[in-house]
Amino acid sequence: MRFTSQSTADGVSERLFILGDIHGVLWTPADSTDTRPLVLLGHGGGQHKKAPGMVARAHRYMTACGFAVAAIDAPGHGDRAKTAQDEQHAAGIKQLMAVGEPIGPQIARDNAERSARAVPEWRATLDALQDAGHAGGPVGFWGVSMGSAIGIPFAATEPRIGAAVFGLAGHETLVEAAAQVTVPVQFLLQWNDELVPRDSGLALFDAFAFREKTLHANPGHHTGVPAFELESSQRFFLRHWRRRPKRMAVYLPHPLV
Amino acid sequence: MRFTSQSTADGVSERLFILGDIHGVLWTPADSTDTRPLVLLGHGGGQHKKAPGMVARAHRYMTACGFAVAAIDAPGHGDRAKTAQDEQHAAGIKQLMAVGEPIGPQIARDNAERSARAVPEWRATLDALQDAGHAGGPVGFWGVSMGSAIGIPFAATEPRIGAAVFGLAGHETLVEAAAQVTVPVQFLLQWNDELVPRDSGLALFDAFAFREKTLHANPGHHTGVPAFELESSQRFFLRHWRRRPKRMAVYLPHPLV
Repeated sequence: MRFTSQSTADGVSERLFILGDIHGVLWTPADSTDTRPLVLLGHGGGQHKKAPGMVARAHRYMTACGFAVAAIDAPGHGDRAKTAQDEQHAAGIKQLMAVGEPIGPQIARDNAERSARAVPEWRATLDALQDAGHAGGPVGFWGVSMGSAIGIPFAATEPRIGAAVFGLAGHETLVEAAAQVTVPVQFLLQWNDELVPRDSGLALFDAFAFREKTLHANPGHHTGVPAFELESSQRFFLRHWRRRPKRMAVYLPHPLV
Repeated sequence: MRFTSQSTADGVSERLFILGDIHGVLWTPADSTDTRPLVLLGHGGGQHKKAPGMVARAHRYMTACGFAVAAIDAPGHGDRAKTAQDEQHAAGIKQLMAVGEPIGPQIARDNAERSARAVPEWRATLDALQDAGHAGGPVGFWGVSMGSAIGIPFAATEPRIGAAVFGLAGHETLVEAAAQVTVPVQFLLQWNDELVPRDSGLALFDAFAFREKTLHANPGHHTGVPAFELESSQRFFLRHWRRRPKRMAVYLPHPLV
């Protein structure tokens, strides 16, 4: 892992790094220690490690919670060279759009293939961050849509991930991986998602193996996740890193008085 | 409205009141003003206005958010006299349990009937609280299970309710009322609810008319709502009383790079 640039502003340090073909960014609060929580951010399709939503989320996690945050470009995205396969994916989607066919299933298939390349890259990144002293505390993952297509198989096979926010993805290509995720999951579903059918998203939530999972569904299309879910994701990570959740009964089950 | 007792401890005032047949309780922070938010709590079947979960919720809303809180006994519950109809309901449920039949549909029917009696009582209570200077700010409603069976028809016809938390109820007897609710709703669904089929709960969430609605689904049975949903309900009320929610895109919809 080679850090290629570093800048510090407003108490936040941003370092770009390269690890083989991987291009990444590490954000740390200025008073960083190796035992603070680290959240890995998986960006969505067409975005990259420093897209505005990623930077805003990273800064929020740092300033509100004191987390360190890292992101890498997915294969074919950001500073990564595109392979012939990446070009084929983009062309396939354009073709479907040109003839007015649904693109959701094709995106799911493309993402499944991309995930096979991306998961080992995330693991190598986490290894390197750990070696560099940046992953000594709890580690979480946040990624929706393509970020979940990559993040769910990653979390299923990476024991260092202790909590994850996923969503905007369906069960077709991900149900087996979800069944192997044994950590707390917060799952985001858009009630009117034009790319992921509602039943497919609900079935993926159902498939997560661990009992500590919670579904947040909101009206709107694929890109319309409400802003308040950012704050909600902070509390999810904090909740699972501070203590085990308690359960309480809020009423009795039936009116036998 | 006649206040029959008052006690103050730890900065919290608790007043019991009677209004015709209605028995209620009003909790206010010691520094109460008539413009602070008021949350009405609708208890579940078999519970009452001062059941432990109700008191804990009221204290949390007061101490964490500065809300005033009021609750009344539902017909046939708490300090209320039971009618022949209430006795019939209880006997009907016991009979179904004795023969191992599902009780969910019968509870839904009983609650629909009870709601017809309870909604005018809530309206009279809110009128009286307003006259007494305790409802000059925003007003919200929290109630799940039977609390929703009563609260949803109440919110559908009461313009003073500006935000509501509902849940653990199905669409069969409530879909028409839900379609008339035009305020923000947070809806709780238990993924393994033995009384409300999952599809019925999802259909009820779908039926709420207003776009500002959010579904929180968690694994577990009817009474197993996780404790963190208490904090979540606070933030829901605060969010809608502080500002209109913003929306943000968290990624682009497809990988056309």
